[in-house]
Amino acid sequence: MKRAVVLLSGGLDSTTTLAIAIEQGYEAYPLSFDYGQRHQIEIDAARRIAKSLGAKEHRVAKIDMRIFGGSALTDDVDVPKKRSETEIAHGIPVTYVPARNTIFLAYALAWAEVIPAAHIFLGVNAIDYSGYPDCRPEFIEAFETLANLGTKAGVEGTRFRVHAPLIRFPKSEIIRKAVELNVDLSLTHSCYDPSPEGLACGGCDSCLLRLKGFRETGIEDPIRYARK
Amino acid sequence: MKRAVVLLSGGLDSTTTLAIAIEQGYEAYPLSFDYGQRHQIEIDAARRIAKSLGAKEHRVAKIDMRIFGGSALTDDVDVPKKRSETEIAHGIPVTYVPARNTIFLAYALAWAEVIPAAHIFLGVNAIDYSGYPDCRPEFIEAFETLANLGTKAGVEGTRFRVHAPLIRFPKSEIIRKAVELNVDLSLTHSCYDPSPEGLACGGCDSCLLRLKGFRETGIEDPIRYARK
Repeated sequence: MKRAVVLLSGGLDSTTTLAIAIEQGYEAYPLSFDYGQRHQIEIDAARRIAKSLGAKEHRVAKIDMRIFGGSALTDDVDVPKKRSETEIAHGIPVTYVPARNTIFLAYALAWAEVIPAAHIFLGVNAIDYSGYPDCRPEFIEAFETLANLGTKAGVEGTRFRVHAPLIRFPKSEIIRKAVELNVDLSLTHSCYDPSPEGLACGGCDSCLLRLKGFRETGIEDPIRYARK
Repeated sequence: MKRAVVLLSGGLDSTTTLAIAIEQGYEAYPLSFDYGQRHQIEIDAARRIAKSLGAKEHRVAKIDMRIFGGSALTDDVDVPKKRSETEIAHGIPVTYVPARNTIFLAYALAWAEVIPAAHIFLGVNAIDYSGYPDCRPEFIEAFETLANLGTKAGVEGTRFRVHAPLIRFPKSEIIRKAVELNVDLSLTHSCYDPSPEGLACGGCDSCLLRLKGFRETGIEDPIRYARK
């Protein structure tokens, strides 16, 4: 059976990516990160999702990215709220974390080599692709090259592949795909700034994009919001 | 002033690399990892070295690589002792840690982007180069490509460069270079399996290569060994 490490944050995109990997016949090894982010809730969501989708083994790597600062997701700065679609769509987001996907993929590669697995799934979508440098196809290809050169497995003939099945998908298509694959969307979590009880804020970029995606599909978002 | 992140383990090679970066006029930001390795002593050594060489700012990133297993440096398996030179030189060492340099460089890149710095120094040497896939020039070039594609700074025009000034150096030349640069070699630490008091074991691959390097130079190794 083909094995794949799947980067799993517990959001809509990575959850749907995990469901796609399993649908495509991969034995899935989801990998989540506890990287000092504000929303520990993400990790709990990831655990429940991995279980509900029948993943083989879920691991959480505790990593310390706060020492680098440089992002609204890791610093003690305010997450921007109620930005317009134009503001969200243009330029590199304030929630950009330096080299995040490079670090995440490096860990995925390390675990893949141990399992051993030759495949890594990454849930980047069309909006990430337009805003984050480390979500572009040329970045992903450069990582594959690095993986094949920089590992014992690569030297011994494994050809690592990084799959990003949602890279051209807008949020609405991701939601449709998730529903088609019977993903329990009530388990997913997207908010950058949830309330202490775990309610989504409804105003950060991630909530706004999620809500817009659901509106476009006509499907109701099953998670609870502090306000919409 | 040019700034550089320097990966610093506290061993001979990374210490000499730091001294070279400073000699070349870089303002140096050494980065060490607390990755659940057995030898915490390495980190203390790195702190003293960064201070003694006049680095600008030293950081230690706590990362959890033990969850991946797969190596004598992170698992509870025995470090091999008293291997012959031929055994040490051939094939990929048992101390290979999956994707380690990929992970280390990814962190270095993240910090470089925050500082901001365009240069990363890595202390791989000729022996690493012959044995570890992630110490080869083609791996280092692939990482530069990845760095330029996968960061905000890269997209905005920074050209990241990874320097490996020792990549063709045998241990003896590294020792000579360190002495030439007035590096206090008594602060460095190479052993994979030190005693509880911090004495080098004298028998692991790293001790054997270090001792051989010193023998070849006629310089006395200033660190203490449990046995030689």
